[in-house]
Amino acid sequence: MKSTFWTRLPITIIGIPLITYLLITGGVIFAGFVSLVVFLCLYEFYGFKQKIGVRPNIIIGMLMSLMICFFYIEFPFPHLTNMIAGITILIVLALLLEMFSGKSHPLDNITTTFAGVIYVAGLLGTMIALRNWDSLNGARFTMAMIFTVWICDSCAYLFGILWGKKKLIERISPKKTIIGFVGGVVGSFTSFYLMNLYGFIQYELDLPSILILTFIVGVCGQLGDFVESMFKRDAGVKDSGKLLLGHGGVLDRFDSLIFTSPLVFIFVSYL
Amino acid sequence: MKSTFWTRLPITIIGIPLITYLLITGGVIFAGFVSLVVFLCLYEFYGFKQKIGVRPNIIIGMLMSLMICFFYIEFPFPHLTNMIAGITILIVLALLLEMFSGKSHPLDNITTTFAGVIYVAGLLGTMIALRNWDSLNGARFTMAMIFTVWICDSCAYLFGILWGKKKLIERISPKKTIIGFVGGVVGSFTSFYLMNLYGFIQYELDLPSILILTFIVGVCGQLGDFVESMFKRDAGVKDSGKLLLGHGGVLDRFDSLIFTSPLVFIFVSYL
Repeated sequence: MKSTFWTRLPITIIGIPLITYLLITGGVIFAGFVSLVVFLCLYEFYGFKQKIGVRPNIIIGMLMSLMICFFYIEFPFPHLTNMIAGITILIVLALLLEMFSGKSHPLDNITTTFAGVIYVAGLLGTMIALRNWDSLNGARFTMAMIFTVWICDSCAYLFGILWGKKKLIERISPKKTIIGFVGGVVGSFTSFYLMNLYGFIQYELDLPSILILTFIVGVCGQLGDFVESMFKRDAGVKDSGKLLLGHGGVLDRFDSLIFTSPLVFIFVSYL
Repeated sequence: MKSTFWTRLPITIIGIPLITYLLITGGVIFAGFVSLVVFLCLYEFYGFKQKIGVRPNIIIGMLMSLMICFFYIEFPFPHLTNMIAGITILIVLALLLEMFSGKSHPLDNITTTFAGVIYVAGLLGTMIALRNWDSLNGARFTMAMIFTVWICDSCAYLFGILWGKKKLIERISPKKTIIGFVGGVVGSFTSFYLMNLYGFIQYELDLPSILILTFIVGVCGQLGDFVESMFKRDAGVKDSGKLLLGHGGVLDRFDSLIFTSPLVFIFVSYL
């Protein structure tokens, strides 16, 4: 489906209030939502390799991802022994099932299964812990991050359309320009600066903290988008999926958050 | 090099007392030894894919493995936030370096990098926590496990030579027979039974516990060997390396322990 303002509108209208509601509610509801997003992204990531005949173990990959989401639900006091036992048994099981199945390309099947869990669940799962970091500030920080990612994307698009000429990394994203990238960084800084100034982020950040957050969302977030584009280009696909109408796949929408969530989580953990 | 009794002898003569000494010493010395083994096994695992042009990020893979070994050194009280921060930043770094490097086959490079860490460090690293489980019993259990793996291998070899006919999983290991496998299980049971009877394992295990340990070493350990053989066969290599003279590579020697260490660790954690 061609991506236009109109095809994108329904998801935007549903998406923004839905995510705000889920973030305010928090708890199992939000964790369940993140887990669902992780499942969908993982499924799409596996799809990249399935196109060329690789057969990852989707069920084991999802169960491993579920364990990681559980780890982040229980964080900072997870039942470590249960976690290690669960994940370890799943790893061993994946290897044994692969061996008994007699499928071809076991190395590819196994490396894809395990790496998908690390790339998607290992990084995106941290959003659950970020939301739970602190009963009030956690939700606000997560919301500020998600809003800023949106603002960053929009500014990058706008700056690129208006003034973009020189490409940033043409072999990966032939449309993205240096000016667009700068626009994203400017948008991110403005977003964090204003949200901090008007008390949306109640924590009261100093300028260095705002600059760190700008770096995480504005720079790393946009690079996360490039990383996903690199994978898609390698797999020879344009969109990771088509679940979200004109928005492409779920992974296309969450590629920046895969990078920003863990980094913002680390940042707030050391505040 | 052709594997004969004489080519294998030097490593055996050095290996058995060395590992016993390291196990008794414990602490940083044993953890350092396990980390070294993890590095060597990971290097050999990456070699399987490098043969066909895949270029995993060996340094990032080793640093991630080091973090996992550290996690198991600190277990059961790891500095979780530091661990998550360290591993997460390495994951993000691996993805960014891959993207900027412009190497071909980024999906293969990344999946190999991450999956090697899970297969080797994620499983074998548990040996550090097993050793530290309890100041006395930890060392004894680990020693009992390693000795039993050796006895299992020897019995499997002996039974196979003497009475082996029907192959077990011919497409993976054309030499291994059903009788050999049974011999390994019998040897494992006898080993654990006698070590328990004569007080080497001071914990005093009941029969169900001995049967569980027999299953872990006798059955799962031998299957771990098959899993590694499956990877070698897929990669088209005979030995994972040649560091250990007639014993082949390091991964060839530790393929059973990659499966038994985490499972024995889980078993003792719930004792």
